[in-house]
Amino acid sequence: MKYRMYDLIEKKKHKIPLTLDEIQEMILAYTAGEIPDYQMSAFLMAVWFQGMTDEELSHFTLAMAASGDELDLSRVSGVKLDKHSTGGVGDKTTLVVAPVLAALGVPTAKMSGRGLGFTGGTVDKLESIPGLRSELTEEEFLRILRTVGFVDAAQTKELAPADKLLYALRDVTATIDSIPLIASSIMSKKLASGADKIVLDVKCGSGAFMRDISSAKALAGQMIRIGEHTEREITAVISDMDQPLGRAVGNALEVMESVEVLKGGGEERLVSLCIALAVEMLQLSDKARPTREEAEEAVKEILQNGAALDRFRAYVREAGGDPAALDRTQVETKYRKEILSDREGYLFSCDAGEVGLVSVLLGAGRAKKGDPIDPESGILLKKKLGDHIGKGEVLAEIFTNREDVLETAEERLLRAYLIKEEPPEAKGVIIDILHSEPI
Amino acid sequence: MKYRMYDLIEKKKHKIPLTLDEIQEMILAYTAGEIPDYQMSAFLMAVWFQGMTDEELSHFTLAMAASGDELDLSRVSGVKLDKHSTGGVGDKTTLVVAPVLAALGVPTAKMSGRGLGFTGGTVDKLESIPGLRSELTEEEFLRILRTVGFVDAAQTKELAPADKLLYALRDVTATIDSIPLIASSIMSKKLASGADKIVLDVKCGSGAFMRDISSAKALAGQMIRIGEHTEREITAVISDMDQPLGRAVGNALEVMESVEVLKGGGEERLVSLCIALAVEMLQLSDKARPTREEAEEAVKEILQNGAALDRFRAYVREAGGDPAALDRTQVETKYRKEILSDREGYLFSCDAGEVGLVSVLLGAGRAKKGDPIDPESGILLKKKLGDHIGKGEVLAEIFTNREDVLETAEERLLRAYLIKEEPPEAKGVIIDILHSEPI
Repeated sequence: MKYRMYDLIEKKKHKIPLTLDEIQEMILAYTAGEIPDYQMSAFLMAVWFQGMTDEELSHFTLAMAASGDELDLSRVSGVKLDKHSTGGVGDKTTLVVAPVLAALGVPTAKMSGRGLGFTGGTVDKLESIPGLRSELTEEEFLRILRTVGFVDAAQTKELAPADKLLYALRDVTATIDSIPLIASSIMSKKLASGADKIVLDVKCGSGAFMRDISSAKALAGQMIRIGEHTEREITAVISDMDQPLGRAVGNALEVMESVEVLKGGGEERLVSLCIALAVEMLQLSDKARPTREEAEEAVKEILQNGAALDRFRAYVREAGGDPAALDRTQVETKYRKEILSDREGYLFSCDAGEVGLVSVLLGAGRAKKGDPIDPESGILLKKKLGDHIGKGEVLAEIFTNREDVLETAEERLLRAYLIKEEPPEAKGVIIDILHSEPI
Repeated sequence: MKYRMYDLIEKKKHKIPLTLDEIQEMILAYTAGEIPDYQMSAFLMAVWFQGMTDEELSHFTLAMAASGDELDLSRVSGVKLDKHSTGGVGDKTTLVVAPVLAALGVPTAKMSGRGLGFTGGTVDKLESIPGLRSELTEEEFLRILRTVGFVDAAQTKELAPADKLLYALRDVTATIDSIPLIASSIMSKKLASGADKIVLDVKCGSGAFMRDISSAKALAGQMIRIGEHTEREITAVISDMDQPLGRAVGNALEVMESVEVLKGGGEERLVSLCIALAVEMLQLSDKARPTREEAEEAVKEILQNGAALDRFRAYVREAGGDPAALDRTQVETKYRKEILSDREGYLFSCDAGEVGLVSVLLGAGRAKKGDPIDPESGILLKKKLGDHIGKGEVLAEIFTNREDVLETAEERLLRAYLIKEEPPEAKGVIIDILHSEPI
């Protein structure tokens, strides 16, 4: 490249903003293997301390987005609307929200990665349906989008390879937990996948990467500002992840719970968040912008009249899956165990990340990339925070095909909950909603 | 190693002090090539921002000192006294101070590196004397020390290889300019070379690494604290390097100037610094600690009566050199040019580093490691800061065997000086003297 990486590190150390050209050259050269990792890791550590200006960060994000394939959604008419979650436990909202929007005439086309660690991926959840294929050709992708109204396919192209390389380096040099770097990592993939309006579900709490509200707000704000600088309209819903979302954690279990919501039922907090996300997406999709009350009425109506479930059923059929799977009410595993509370009281707090890790132990997720998944395994939570539980009453039910993990899973699940004599202060699932300037 | 480097980076990021064991393991593993550079550079950048506690830094320094060979000076009786300069332009004080101390019955044994960049090395200066060998066997080293009273040999053993590796990494990741890292780099080599009392000459100004007094004091203080934690007694003389020291810059020229001082003459600031350094070394060497006035009288006496010059002559003879070289008053080069001032006024300021680089251009130093040196080339400065100069009067004289550099050298030398109508404020060569707790 035409700059010395040494000089760029020096600038960042002293908080002198890098120019567009410097950032583009740096990302290009690093992706091409022309900048050694030891220089890039020093740069990233300097960013950890000094941050980036909004301008720098937008250049950085766009340069990463441009470092590989970029999806061309020009054959899809209208607004390119996307939804992205920063990752939580039991988050099946996409399985509800996409069919709801399709039923309301708003198409969403999404490319998703697979789950890793304690957070599950939507593609994994869909693939728990027998026969359903998530790796689609471009023709299939566009056909399903046209006929069904939404599509959520596995990412096959190489989107933002610079982000992939930088993330791997950050992962071993203790520079993951930098809000600007997290924001640009997420946004680079969103920009590369062609969306021009995005609803971000920024999770906050013990089962999310952002543990406290102030860092969740900082991350949301940073992504909104990247959106403003790159002419994408962004809404960020900051939602509570101090306990798993809904009652189900595990792929087939979560599909069953989504169907429940699409039939007009479901756990209250999960339903609230699905409605809020759908309302925000409707707001972005429609230039006329219905009032929130109107939008909420429309979403609730669609959940009651079965039109959204109908869209979900159509998707399963078109993607090669067995629609009968949507009528299941049970998973099939060799082992199934009720976890009984060893004391009486109120569920006071929960280590939601630990619940996610227990589901991985049961077979529902991946400890490392490429691990196989057992779609039937998982956890059904019988109690939510604030609920009263008696000694010996069922806290949760676990499902697995691995006998050897039953005991550990039970112990860890019991320890993940704190039970006290007093209930905790009630806390809604929606913490805040932030908007970028309309475009 | 038994720790994860990731965790050590994480601690440093959050300013949590590392333990002795963590630091020792890290230095050991890095020297053995078991920690990748990209992790170490992230760690070093975190140190750049967060610093180190005095305890951490002492552990770090000792671990680097222990990473390779360590000189065993147990066969040398008495106090192991060393002098170290942080590097300046025209600094030939060791050539004066070591013979003075020898004549006063205080032995000094020193291993030096060679010069690099704008600063020259004492070994290079000594080797400008025909026949003199600086690479000595252990036997020769000890024999010369016994018979002459001082020795300054080229470093042949591998002292502090961890420092060498870390320095090379810092050099390409913009982490050189960290005061704790500079302090530990210098001190690790001093500790490995067996000294237990050290006078540090911390240079400060345009021809030194530390540009301003506050950073020079910070560096001196940091090295003193490392000394206190590692049971070495340290005196730090902070000396002015806003112009070259003395009048000569270049190897043979500097030997000639040293002889001048050893004969009781010499440029005033150079003489002052030599006396100050010798006095501080005498203070450290003698448990009885003569008063500064007594010590100064003794040093001046030795410079006047020729006893120190006699020691220098003996050293040259014992190291295989031609003692007649000490009687020279001229260097021999193909080209020699007087640099005439293009204006009248007072020498107001000087870019001493640039003067050093011009001497490298003339052949007197190395641009990179292993470059050959032309011992005869260099610069003789006819004027010092504060002196008046007339238009067309001689500012300096340059000596070189390279015709092609004459013009550039002249231009750069003229530009290195600022001449004004008013003289600058007078400034002594000794800025401050700091002491560690006596041991």
